[in-house]
Amino acid sequence: MSEQFLRLGVPKGSLQDATIKLFEKAGWKIKLHERNYFPDIDDDRIKCSLARAQEMSMYVENGTFDVGLTGMDWIRENKSDVVVVDDLIYSKVSNRKARWVLCVRGDSPYKRPEDLDGKKISTELMGFTKEYFESQGINVDVSFSWGTTEAKVVEGLCDGIVEITETGTTIKANGLRIIAELMQTNTQIIANKDAWADPKKRQLIEEINLLLQGALRAGKMVGLKMNLPKNKLAELNGTLPSLNSPTVAELQDPNWLSVEVMVEEKIVRELIPRLVSFGAEGIIEYPLNKVI
Amino acid sequence: MSEQFLRLGVPKGSLQDATIKLFEKAGWKIKLHERNYFPDIDDDRIKCSLARAQEMSMYVENGTFDVGLTGMDWIRENKSDVVVVDDLIYSKVSNRKARWVLCVRGDSPYKRPEDLDGKKISTELMGFTKEYFESQGINVDVSFSWGTTEAKVVEGLCDGIVEITETGTTIKANGLRIIAELMQTNTQIIANKDAWADPKKRQLIEEINLLLQGALRAGKMVGLKMNLPKNKLAELNGTLPSLNSPTVAELQDPNWLSVEVMVEEKIVRELIPRLVSFGAEGIIEYPLNKVI
Amino acid sequence: MSEQFLRLGVPKGSLQDATIKLFEKAGWKIKLHERNYFPDIDDDRIKCSLARAQEMSMYVENGTFDVGLTGMDWIRENKSDVVVVDDLIYSKVSNRKARWVLCVRGDSPYKRPEDLDGKKISTELMGFTKEYFESQGINVDVSFSWGTTEAKVVEGLCDGIVEITETGTTIKANGLRIIAELMQTNTQIIANKDAWADPKKRQLIEEINLLLQGALRAGKMVGLKMNLPKNKLAELNGTLPSLNSPTVAELQDPNWLSVEVMVEEKIVRELIPRLVSFGAEGIIEYPLNKVI
Amino acid sequence: MSEQFLRLGVPKGSLQDATIKLFEKAGWKIKLHERNYFPDIDDDRIKCSLARAQEMSMYVENGTFDVGLTGMDWIRENKSDVVVVDDLIYSKVSNRKARWVLCVRGDSPYKRPEDLDGKKISTELMGFTKEYFESQGINVDVSFSWGTTEAKVVEGLCDGIVEITETGTTIKANGLRIIAELMQTNTQIIANKDAWADPKKRQLIEEINLLLQGALRAGKMVGLKMNLPKNKLAELNGTLPSLNSPTVAELQDPNWLSVEVMVEEKIVRELIPRLVSFGAEGIIEYPLNKVI
Amino acid sequence: MSEQFLRLGVPKGSLQDATIKLFEKAGWKIKLHERNYFPDIDDDRIKCSLARAQEMSMYVENGTFDVGLTGMDWIRENKSDVVVVDDLIYSKVSNRKARWVLCVRGDSPYKRPEDLDGKKISTELMGFTKEYFESQGINVDVSFSWGTTEAKVVEGLCDGIVEITETGTTIKANGLRIIAELMQTNTQIIANKDAWADPKKRQLIEEINLLLQGALRAGKMVGLKMNLPKNKLAELNGTLPSLNSPTVAELQDPNWLSVEVMVEEKIVRELIPRLVSFGAEGIIEYPLNKVI
Amino acid sequence: MSEQFLRLGVPKGSLQDATIKLFEKAGWKIKLHERNYFPDIDDDRIKCSLARAQEMSMYVENGTFDVGLTGMDWIRENKSDVVVVDDLIYSKVSNRKARWVLCVRGDSPYKRPEDLDGKKISTELMGFTKEYFESQGINVDVSFSWGTTEAKVVEGLCDGIVEITETGTTIKANGLRIIAELMQTNTQIIANKDAWADPKKRQLIEEINLLLQGALRAGKMVGLKMNLPKNKLAELNGTLPSLNSPTVAELQDPNWLSVEVMVEEKIVRELIPRLVSFGAEGIIEYPLNKVI
Repeated sequence: MSEQFLRLGVPKGSLQDATIKLFEKAGWKIKLHERNYFPDIDDDRIKCSLARAQEMSMYVENGTFDVGLTGMDWIRENKSDVVVVDDLIYSKVSNRKARWVLCVRGDSPYKRPEDLDGKKISTELMGFTKEYFESQGINVDVSFSWGTTEAKVVEGLCDGIVEITETGTTIKANGLRIIAELMQTNTQIIANKDAWADPKKRQLIEEINLLLQGALRAGKMVGLKMNLPKNKLAELNGTLPSLNSPTVAELQDPNWLSVEVMVEEKIVRELIPRLVSFGAEGIIEYPLNKVI
Repeated sequence: MSEQFLRLGVPKGSLQDATIKLFEKAGWKIKLHERNYFPDIDDDRIKCSLARAQEMSMYVENGTFDVGLTGMDWIRENKSDVVVVDDLIYSKVSNRKARWVLCVRGDSPYKRPEDLDGKKISTELMGFTKEYFESQGINVDVSFSWGTTEAKVVEGLCDGIVEITETGTTIKANGLRIIAELMQTNTQIIANKDAWADPKKRQLIEEINLLLQGALRAGKMVGLKMNLPKNKLAELNGTLPSLNSPTVAELQDPNWLSVEVMVEEKIVRELIPRLVSFGAEGIIEYPLNKVI
Repeated sequence: MSEQFLRLGVPKGSLQDATIKLFEKAGWKIKLHERNYFPDIDDDRIKCSLARAQEMSMYVENGTFDVGLTGMDWIRENKSDVVVVDDLIYSKVSNRKARWVLCVRGDSPYKRPEDLDGKKISTELMGFTKEYFESQGINVDVSFSWGTTEAKVVEGLCDGIVEITETGTTIKANGLRIIAELMQTNTQIIANKDAWADPKKRQLIEEINLLLQGALRAGKMVGLKMNLPKNKLAELNGTLPSLNSPTVAELQDPNWLSVEVMVEEKIVRELIPRLVSFGAEGIIEYPLNKVI
Repeated sequence: MSEQFLRLGVPKGSLQDATIKLFEKAGWKIKLHERNYFPDIDDDRIKCSLARAQEMSMYVENGTFDVGLTGMDWIRENKSDVVVVDDLIYSKVSNRKARWVLCVRGDSPYKRPEDLDGKKISTELMGFTKEYFESQGINVDVSFSWGTTEAKVVEGLCDGIVEITETGTTIKANGLRIIAELMQTNTQIIANKDAWADPKKRQLIEEINLLLQGALRAGKMVGLKMNLPKNKLAELNGTLPSLNSPTVAELQDPNWLSVEVMVEEKIVRELIPRLVSFGAEGIIEYPLNKVI
Repeated sequence: MSEQFLRLGVPKGSLQDATIKLFEKAGWKIKLHERNYFPDIDDDRIKCSLARAQEMSMYVENGTFDVGLTGMDWIRENKSDVVVVDDLIYSKVSNRKARWVLCVRGDSPYKRPEDLDGKKISTELMGFTKEYFESQGINVDVSFSWGTTEAKVVEGLCDGIVEITETGTTIKANGLRIIAELMQTNTQIIANKDAWADPKKRQLIEEINLLLQGALRAGKMVGLKMNLPKNKLAELNGTLPSLNSPTVAELQDPNWLSVEVMVEEKIVRELIPRLVSFGAEGIIEYPLNKVI
Repeated sequence: MSEQFLRLGVPKGSLQDATIKLFEKAGWKIKLHERNYFPDIDDDRIKCSLARAQEMSMYVENGTFDVGLTGMDWIRENKSDVVVVDDLIYSKVSNRKARWVLCVRGDSPYKRPEDLDGKKISTELMGFTKEYFESQGINVDVSFSWGTTEAKVVEGLCDGIVEITETGTTIKANGLRIIAELMQTNTQIIANKDAWADPKKRQLIEEINLLLQGALRAGKMVGLKMNLPKNKLAELNGTLPSLNSPTVAELQDPNWLSVEVMVEEKIVRELIPRLVSFGAEGIIEYPLNKVI
């Protein structure tokens, strides 16, 4: 590494706790100091800083940070020239992608974006929103919102808003209606171009990404292990999710095999009854910390 | 399935949280809505309702629910004609069976049920209690209690009570003495007869039961894995709990075997020293999610 | 007192905590013992027992307790022959009266009680419900519900329910509609007839009631104190709530009076601006523990 | 009122909880709905909305709200043409005024604002900061910060920041040094000009302000009451804080007076010993809800 | 003051929180710093230190502190030559005095201290215990206990213990029996002799004591205020607790008086009914912060 | 065993909760009773008592306990003649060894122990401290401290202290400076000599130690499992931590091996990238309960 450490930008705010937990699962302890923006990390090769998700990509672009985590939405909003290393699908709520949506009052006549031609739009994501409507040939007046954006449609301060949502709960709770989805977004791990070109820094960034991905994957998967009559193996292979080829080992009893496989937790309740029907015995499910 | 979903009755009250946790371990997320008796479940094939444990078997019998969880005591009290699919030994307190017991004041002369001949009994389980005393040829006056049943003996409103207990703590705390155990009870998974006769519904009920049992079992077991000199295997097999035959695999080193076994957590502290004495090495214990 | 103590029944369950807090404000500390139904009270003249609100009036009637607190609904349901000493308007939620209401599915055609003629009704309050429909000449089939009563209409087990509600939230949350209010109810302090005839017991019951009422009243009132020009007093008296005649004292300055008055907290925000407009000065509001 | 209600803007964010508590002490219950920006208030004459403190004054100016609470800083930043009804000195932390300060790295050579001539400044309060430096004839490059502003000086992204602080803790925790205080700010109650010109609206706004001020004042004051020998009154009056003239009443004993006075809680520990030395007896201190 | 501040010793450990709360009620905010033994106090004339109650009196005697709070037991144990300013009856549990008692096993034959002649005693209060037995002419072997003293009797390490207790719960919970009370103890405010001789320091110590006592007293008392027919005053005076002479003021109506009195909270429930019987009207009870 | 049970001393105080958790991981449930010093343990062969860590070794030496857990510091302080069975490196804070250090005021001139010649030292560990200075030929006056020892240097009551620390935080928070480390200490499992000579007791003590060590080790380790090309095994063995020889099994595919290894959690983040670079596939990390 040309410098003695990798500078890592950690998103302050709604993603902060989820990010710190994810790093802990991946193998790094990040320790916040009250009212200080420079957390400790138990790795001498890395220095951490907190930064707002809205500004992160600018700081990665200008080299303040070598690597950072932030949403795809703000990378696009800032038109930042950075290396997108990988997708990291996690959030404080749902492990789902968030969406920027166009909303109007529930009792308004607007059904499609073009119905808002000549109208006022309020949003925190100014640049992207302007471009979107321009690209659609729709003429709108976009203004910046500091927050409580949903309230502005209700109060008549604007005719539509472009707002982020995971579950739609706040939108519904304020009586609004979604009429278009403008962008899906989720967390990205991004790198500065010079850092990416530096072999030592790139290797460390890739190792961090490898372990973050491994921790994320493990949160959704479990290990299954079973004994299987040898003659059922082919049948089983047809059944098991194709991407996870099972580890098959001989047992002392020559008619049986030990089969171990990592599967998504959510399919287990359907998979186990089928394994039983194939004659699998001694099926156990166990938790995982990482799946690489 | 003749209908598009399986109707599942979830017991409201003291078993509610334990039931929801058990389903979560088994692979289903049940989400309660505040002040609403119809929880969501993340399985399109199932619809949930909350019902009191006291009434559950009546609703399974009359087809309101296809399947439900409730205590053996209330199935008997209601004389419900349902299919008892399986035992589910869990509770909010202890994973032990609960007991309906006959109690009297600590300072009373009563020693056996027959000493209460001609006396007053208070209980929430009217039908069962009457039958019990009739079957014993003892003549008692049974009246219904809405609660605080223990207090009624203390205040002299009755001479004995028939009450449920797991640990005996409430009985002791009110100064009462148990003179007979009338029935052991624990949670049952029960099915409606028509639902059981419907192959699709029956299969789904059996799958649910398979996974509930697997989750319950895993809560009391752990996995043990070790390397063992090949010549010690016979000796080991004599030692290990017979119901869990170990999975034995060859290792590269031809003198050693890899042995893996699922055992009850509570015997581990005695088992491990014996495994060490047999020459087992690299013993690890790991947690389990399900044991089928 | 013909006996050495007054036996007091404290309602177990939803009213329990509110009752104990009310007694504390009134001047008595009731201390619960875990899993024991006989709480301590710091008054040698009184002995406490917990009992279900449903059964309380029966135990006051038969002399198990001299005095007890329970709802008017269960006094009527049990047709108990007791002395109703006073109303105690408090609850766990709202300090409002609760109501027993007749509810049907939101999408059902039933609009009035008579629309349920020939239909099934489910309720915990069997006796009262039967009498109500009989008195209206409506023929219904009433059955007992152990709980989750709202769910029974939704599932079609019955056509209507008679259920208690303070805010209507549970009824609405299950998609039901109220079509009639059958009874308003709230907590009563009731006494056994013989206890009431015993002068010493009656005096103690009346003292308890006096202090409970004083504590309840103080929770809704505040003290206001101000200096007022003497010539404004008549004007003020016309303004102040008539039931609380102010305490008026001379001040050293012969042109001013000190006026002190207890008023309902909820009118203070309208009262103070008017007092200011009359020329009142040095207005202070202070909290109260009891108002007799 | 020309309309049927007064529209009140409640600041969302750091002031939100303190504002709602203050209104409760003043006599209004504001109830938030989860994820909805229109809280309920128990006064038919008022409608509430949540809005960001940064935007509040714009919405009061343009008539979206008749009255609102926000900081003096953002009123100035927005150059909003509104009526400042009164100061409301409260905050989430300290009941002190907050300050916008100019900070630099602790180890930097900058000592005064002019040392930053030609340098970069980062702040959330763009307009005010630009004007400040222009008015001082200092040439700086001001850029907008979304947050973690302190970190930007540390990381060398800028040479100084203009940031708000109450206690200086965050500034110190990041190793920065304050070199100038640019503005003191605290919460203001502001009104729309048209609303203020409407006599009914103005009266209601003034009543709200009267009660908010009364509640704020009571939080810092207590009542003292004592009996005093008549011949000590003059001496006492010289001692007592001049702004709170005592209420003096005759007692039955002609040599003694009853004296009551409202004082700041923080002086009580010095005042009581002096009252005792004057011969005051039966001194009591009691809490207050409002002081008008 | 000969020095610029008064050095105050605050007891660390079981009394710490109660002490800090008491000072807050009295008018001083003491703020602890984590892991630091020198708390802040909001009074420039005072400096605080934490010290163990066991050592406090030694530090007051040798002038490390001018004034401190500690138990009478440790003042005697240390035979410290200090000024006992006043008693402060408060504790973490009960506002009662604690007692050092001599305990033996519940099943032992020992009934009186002399039965332990020739036996072993374990205690934390070595000096006092030795002197006690010497003064009684009983010969015992006293050894020091670091804690879990009750356990030592049970395990046979000693025959009796001398231990402190407020409620006797720990003693009973370990199956011991109290056979003698050796000393009552409670918190004292003590001063260094030189500090007490310094008029300025002594005045400040006395002021602190005055306000601590006032806060303690207020915690057990309430204010009562009522209107009383003039001709009942004499009768009332006979009834009211003698130490609190009522404040009596004329009202506008010449037949009535305003009477205000501070009484112990625990007698209110008996007092109010009697006041009503005398014809008192408009009785209110209100809370107090201090009673001097 | 010559007696029917093994008497186990559990340290009361700062180590208590950590000890009980460690026993739970090892397989024993210890249940505390409020205010009683004899906890239950779910093993008929063992009886538990709580004792202060300071006194534990004396009670193990004199046979009150057969086995106990306490710090090396107090074993040395008490010069107890006991069998040290094993080291147990755990604590409430850090899993690190604690240190007894010599500290002075931060602004004092003392740099080395000998600078304190002729000075006063305060400590809870009297005997050890005296011996230390004697062995160094340094003449100091050592006095006992009940607590808040750091404060004594600050207040000038002594010139140096000997105090225990894990992280140095309290020392730094009081402005002190460490000038020497006198002893490292951590928890030991110790046995009475006679108990150790009794074969049955010794076996049980060794079994307890085996399982405590296994639980401690598992807290710092994880399991890694992977598929590896057969020809990479030698290379891998060179890489893997030598003390944990991997378990290698044949897979059905003759070119691949299943490799399983237990490693320290803290090296995983560096190990996994190297495993990937060797061609390992399907790497999973899983949690462990015990590692023997």
